[in-house]
Amino acid sequence: MNKPFIIRGDIIFSNQDKSLNVNKNSYLVSDGYKSLGIFKRIPKKYKDYELIDYKGKLIIPGFSDLHVHAPQYQYRGTGMDVELMEWLEKYAFKEERKYGNNTYAKKAYKMFVDELKNGYTTRASIFATIHREGTRILMKLLEKSGLSTYVGLVEMDRNSPDYYRQASVEEALKDTEQWIVESQLFDNTYPIITPRFLPTCSDELMAGLSELRKKYNLKSQSHLDENPLEIQFVMEIEKDVDHYSGGYIKFDMFGLDHDCIMAHCVHNNEEEIKLLKDRGIFVAHCPESNMNVTSGIAPISKYLDMGIRVGLGSDVGGGSSLSLLRAARQSIQVSKLYRRCIDMNLRSLDSKDAFYMLTRGGGEFFGHVGSLEKGYEFDCVVVDDSKIKTLLNDSPEERIERLLYLGDESLIVAKYCKGKKII
Amino acid sequence: MNKPFIIRGDIIFSNQDKSLNVNKNSYLVSDGYKSLGIFKRIPKKYKDYELIDYKGKLIIPGFSDLHVHAPQYQYRGTGMDVELMEWLEKYAFKEERKYGNNTYAKKAYKMFVDELKNGYTTRASIFATIHREGTRILMKLLEKSGLSTYVGLVEMDRNSPDYYRQASVEEALKDTEQWIVESQLFDNTYPIITPRFLPTCSDELMAGLSELRKKYNLKSQSHLDENPLEIQFVMEIEKDVDHYSGGYIKFDMFGLDHDCIMAHCVHNNEEEIKLLKDRGIFVAHCPESNMNVTSGIAPISKYLDMGIRVGLGSDVGGGSSLSLLRAARQSIQVSKLYRRCIDMNLRSLDSKDAFYMLTRGGGEFFGHVGSLEKGYEFDCVVVDDSKIKTLLNDSPEERIERLLYLGDESLIVAKYCKGKKII
Repeated sequence: MNKPFIIRGDIIFSNQDKSLNVNKNSYLVSDGYKSLGIFKRIPKKYKDYELIDYKGKLIIPGFSDLHVHAPQYQYRGTGMDVELMEWLEKYAFKEERKYGNNTYAKKAYKMFVDELKNGYTTRASIFATIHREGTRILMKLLEKSGLSTYVGLVEMDRNSPDYYRQASVEEALKDTEQWIVESQLFDNTYPIITPRFLPTCSDELMAGLSELRKKYNLKSQSHLDENPLEIQFVMEIEKDVDHYSGGYIKFDMFGLDHDCIMAHCVHNNEEEIKLLKDRGIFVAHCPESNMNVTSGIAPISKYLDMGIRVGLGSDVGGGSSLSLLRAARQSIQVSKLYRRCIDMNLRSLDSKDAFYMLTRGGGEFFGHVGSLEKGYEFDCVVVDDSKIKTLLNDSPEERIERLLYLGDESLIVAKYCKGKKII
Repeated sequence: MNKPFIIRGDIIFSNQDKSLNVNKNSYLVSDGYKSLGIFKRIPKKYKDYELIDYKGKLIIPGFSDLHVHAPQYQYRGTGMDVELMEWLEKYAFKEERKYGNNTYAKKAYKMFVDELKNGYTTRASIFATIHREGTRILMKLLEKSGLSTYVGLVEMDRNSPDYYRQASVEEALKDTEQWIVESQLFDNTYPIITPRFLPTCSDELMAGLSELRKKYNLKSQSHLDENPLEIQFVMEIEKDVDHYSGGYIKFDMFGLDHDCIMAHCVHNNEEEIKLLKDRGIFVAHCPESNMNVTSGIAPISKYLDMGIRVGLGSDVGGGSSLSLLRAARQSIQVSKLYRRCIDMNLRSLDSKDAFYMLTRGGGEFFGHVGSLEKGYEFDCVVVDDSKIKTLLNDSPEERIERLLYLGDESLIVAKYCKGKKII
């Protein structure tokens, strides 16, 4: 347990209704792990706590990245010339196979973790590769970083090149169970069951993964309804289900009895949208990736207004940048194009929606995370937004809006995860 | 005239056909104003020129910003909650009126010019406000910066609030002519005739501006077919033309006998697209702004493939950032959404198209600008792209692609405009 402390600054977080909770020049108290609340003056009982003064700086919750592929980090920002299914073959699988080499994995993952650590993100749900040892290397690095993350050994036993596929269902499941057990030694880095997506997972593999998930009481993550050609392929190979979601439901790998992230959800039909809501799925909205591999625009305002849980994902390397500020502004921007190009009846998102998804929306996957209210785990970022030059006196709402559009990692003054200062 | 010199590095620019011209570890020679060519070894006749060694760094042409509103800089990244026409009333006009105060203008424009100077942009075509003295202040600052720019005194005598409108056609034209004459004293900062857009310019004002344009042999810039509600309004008030473009053509303010930038061109009909081509219009493509104020997506690959001249615009404050790297990657991204959401028959743009628009495409408006070939004005940026960390050995094409997606201003090592080092 870290020592208790207090920080002062302009504290802003999202309320449950997505409005901003603004506390100018206030004190945020931590017991070294959680928030003990926000105060205009330091309460007597905390008067001996160390005070770190960030007066005038923004203090906001850490961001949650609900979808990111660590082994695609090295080629992020390149390979933007093809659509999803071709992109997997041409770029993703070729790079991911390299993580069978532990030396490469160590070097490459270190760069990924370093950048993640130095950004606004405090929580992430991460895809690794099919390699157990490589995945363990990533988890060790993450554990050391002070971030709190879920990491998935990626499962795939069909429809991928021979050079990048698990040898058999038996070996895959044996490997996965061993990895789950080994992962118990980490405090802040948790295994998550990760079938890559339906096309690469046989029924037998899915059934086995589902058993492991239940046996060890784990969360799960995968991809859903990302790209038209992908969905077409799924419907060709999955003859006994009505829709893509059905392929996961068949194996109890679609929420309901466990927390489950489905990345993208761009092209869900009405029935599938209802399933997201009814089964408490976390949608990882990845607007940049959805542009880069020509997937489309997810109807996120509809999801949010229905009460579906939505967070943001950088989706590196379909997305080019680990910076969730980029995902936030793009979520607003593409929602406007959705209106203009697809359906004027859907409202566009605004900066409050985006800030909510960045923090409280995605944070919920990790427990009491994404707010700064009393009882929430103490994840926050201290931001010197005065570096974004202007003569105007921004309101608190405008400071947040400007941060989303113009902020970058150079503004970060300090970052805390679970009460521990990690930058 | 500056002294002649040579710089060494990895020199990349766009060919006329948009392919990349790659010159690894080569020498780029300048006579102090223009390029004298690129060489594998320094030719004997240049052996006494000073050599500045940027070995391993990227050397690329400076970028051209074909559309940016300097007085909207202060509120960039805020006010993203409404569509274009409402946005003008709610934000743009209210801020622009402030530039009637010279003290404010000086302070605010200085911040704009400082950021423009420190970025990748070497050329820009800029909207100021309706204020002659404020516009002169901006031009003085730009002249001092070393950038080479066109600046427009903004013309508007109708359909805007009383507090932000020229007093009368006579005064507007008198003011404009005086401003044109005064501007002759600048070497690198040129006046450009700038009717804001059809809705704010009466026939009488347009006719007078057209005369001034011809009298002083000037270029012109305005907005065209940006947003559906704007176009609807134009067609309501302009009864005697078939389309928006017709309103400019009526007054010889639409290319043909002069260089003319039309910003946006999102919703041009087929006839209007043909006019862009036939009259040699420069389209300023502003993808971020077109998202932010819910305008839509311009069919840029169609324009490029027809041979229409296209460059990029930051369109601050409809766009939030002066960084044209952002405009470049967004041009690619929205072109993919155009395919997915509007027309799969249109090809999407790639990084070569975007790099071309950034440099050669937009540069053409400024003369022999936007390439590093012999005879072109010596505008270039030296970039340390090794700061974008990766274990992979990027090809030159991938270095450019990664720069567009992940680069920022912190990578800039040096910048030259017309042979003068300005950073």
